[in-house]
Amino acid sequence: MRDSNFIRVYESERKKINKILSKAVKNRKPESLYKPGSYILNSGGKRLRPLLVLMSAKAVGGSFNNAYNAAAAVEMLHNFTLVHDDIMDNADKRRGRLTLHKKYDNNTAILTGDSLLSVAYEYLLKDCNGNAKEVVGSFTKGLVEVCEGQSMDTDFESRKNVSIIEYLLMIRKKTAAMAEMCCRIGAMLGCGNKTQVNALGNYGLNLGIAFQIQDDLLDLVADEEEFGKKIGGDLVEGKKTFLFVAALEKSKGEERKKLLKVIENKGVKQNQLSSYKELYQKLGVLEEAKKEIKLYTKKALKSLDVFNNKNINIFRWLADSLIHRTK
Amino acid sequence: MRDSNFIRVYESERKKINKILSKAVKNRKPESLYKPGSYILNSGGKRLRPLLVLMSAKAVGGSFNNAYNAAAAVEMLHNFTLVHDDIMDNADKRRGRLTLHKKYDNNTAILTGDSLLSVAYEYLLKDCNGNAKEVVGSFTKGLVEVCEGQSMDTDFESRKNVSIIEYLLMIRKKTAAMAEMCCRIGAMLGCGNKTQVNALGNYGLNLGIAFQIQDDLLDLVADEEEFGKKIGGDLVEGKKTFLFVAALEKSKGEERKKLLKVIENKGVKQNQLSSYKELYQKLGVLEEAKKEIKLYTKKALKSLDVFNNKNINIFRWLADSLIHRTK
Repeated sequence: MRDSNFIRVYESERKKINKILSKAVKNRKPESLYKPGSYILNSGGKRLRPLLVLMSAKAVGGSFNNAYNAAAAVEMLHNFTLVHDDIMDNADKRRGRLTLHKKYDNNTAILTGDSLLSVAYEYLLKDCNGNAKEVVGSFTKGLVEVCEGQSMDTDFESRKNVSIIEYLLMIRKKTAAMAEMCCRIGAMLGCGNKTQVNALGNYGLNLGIAFQIQDDLLDLVADEEEFGKKIGGDLVEGKKTFLFVAALEKSKGEERKKLLKVIENKGVKQNQLSSYKELYQKLGVLEEAKKEIKLYTKKALKSLDVFNNKNINIFRWLADSLIHRTK
Repeated sequence: MRDSNFIRVYESERKKINKILSKAVKNRKPESLYKPGSYILNSGGKRLRPLLVLMSAKAVGGSFNNAYNAAAAVEMLHNFTLVHDDIMDNADKRRGRLTLHKKYDNNTAILTGDSLLSVAYEYLLKDCNGNAKEVVGSFTKGLVEVCEGQSMDTDFESRKNVSIIEYLLMIRKKTAAMAEMCCRIGAMLGCGNKTQVNALGNYGLNLGIAFQIQDDLLDLVADEEEFGKKIGGDLVEGKKTFLFVAALEKSKGEERKKLLKVIENKGVKQNQLSSYKELYQKLGVLEEAKKEIKLYTKKALKSLDVFNNKNINIFRWLADSLIHRTK
């Protein structure tokens, strides 16, 4: 299949997922709960996680039809995390619209998040049969880890030092565990065997790690117009990204002092960005990020070796698209 | 078995549940997430919901051992709702200690609540086997309803009028659905048949409704010392309790105006309490509450008729204890 065909599949499935999500909270009562739920579920998004579920079901010999409800479930779970994270970060905007707690209020956003998670489990169960214990177990492990990852990320904010190992554990939990889970439950629902489930899980995990490092890198090197938001936001907010943590590990003397100031001042000013970007370049952390992204993407692709059917090519296309993305 | 024996069983099982809960979050990392989790799980509580799970497993011919993890899971779910409700209500105290968001902060409390729910599912699954779809489905239905009930309760705050029917639907979702779920999953895990699962579910549902109306009544008529907190708190806060809603339905003219003032002023002053209590008495709503408590308790007991083993007597004792409780 050519790239344009993969894009067509993706776009077509994305629309189907959007329909299921929209229907999932429509006409449910009380309106005070499901209208805010509908606001966030109808706000767009890449829908990559549902795509992983569907692709995985098909890759093991099942069909998309085995996993549409589960695909909707992982997107609801993802949106639950977004709604609660946005309260915690006091974020104003999400996907170009007001965040849920700004559109309504904190209490509504807390409860809507909880409710999205409850409906997520409801939808997941629709696609389960004899394998419910394994499927729900994997979904729950993803949920446990995303909470742990979020807590680690919050810890990092107030810490003086974070090692690359700690950073990698954090993104593994906060981002990659969810991608792993999507592939695993898709493969389980498509009735894949253990080898297939593990292989796709591994793909998701490594792709998730590459995706997050890429996210950190793009924040500094993307083209501002294509990126759609200000470049260097992570540095301005003083976030412990891959770049920052790697730079801190490599730096000494004055350069280290300069980096520690970011922690001390909880970020840098807009006019300091270029000087910090230069420091990153000097320390070689932009190159290191690119190396890591390639390494984890390669690991992801390697785990596909157990498959020899054409349904697996879409996974290669997806990995390739993510590594070359500009936003 | 005599009452003292039932009390002994309850106390002994309560200790076991406390141990499982304490162990569930001990030594888990990150500490920033599980230490607050441990704070709330180790803060005591009646542990009635876990007891319902265990009793139900035994009543259908299973044993307590079939359901200890599930029993811990329902208590974690309950604590998740308490933590998030306390943020929404801006409550200071819970079980005689600072609420979680006062001890830590709102962000920690949001995330700890989420995490308790994730570990709840993890524990529930430990006791599931071939019946995972049904057990997790029932647990999830309880979660969906508790979110809906909480949202309805919040709606009521800003509304001018709430009917008894709406009030009953709200407590059915917010309180009784969880008790129903506890009995259902206990019965399923004890390998009960459909008739037994439904009968115990019905017991839990009706007992839950009776329990909540009793809660509303005690708030006004309990002995302050035994009750452990100020009498009339619901009226002071202007809550739409059974008493208030029933009074509003029965009142006309000046009396109705007096009640509408509670809504308008978002509560009454301490020195107005006795005059409102008199009005309730005049309208007969204290008697009506007692009648409803008896009615729902009778319904609960009636649903036990399908059983004819002695393991069911503890359900009678529990219903009797709750109807005669003073706090």
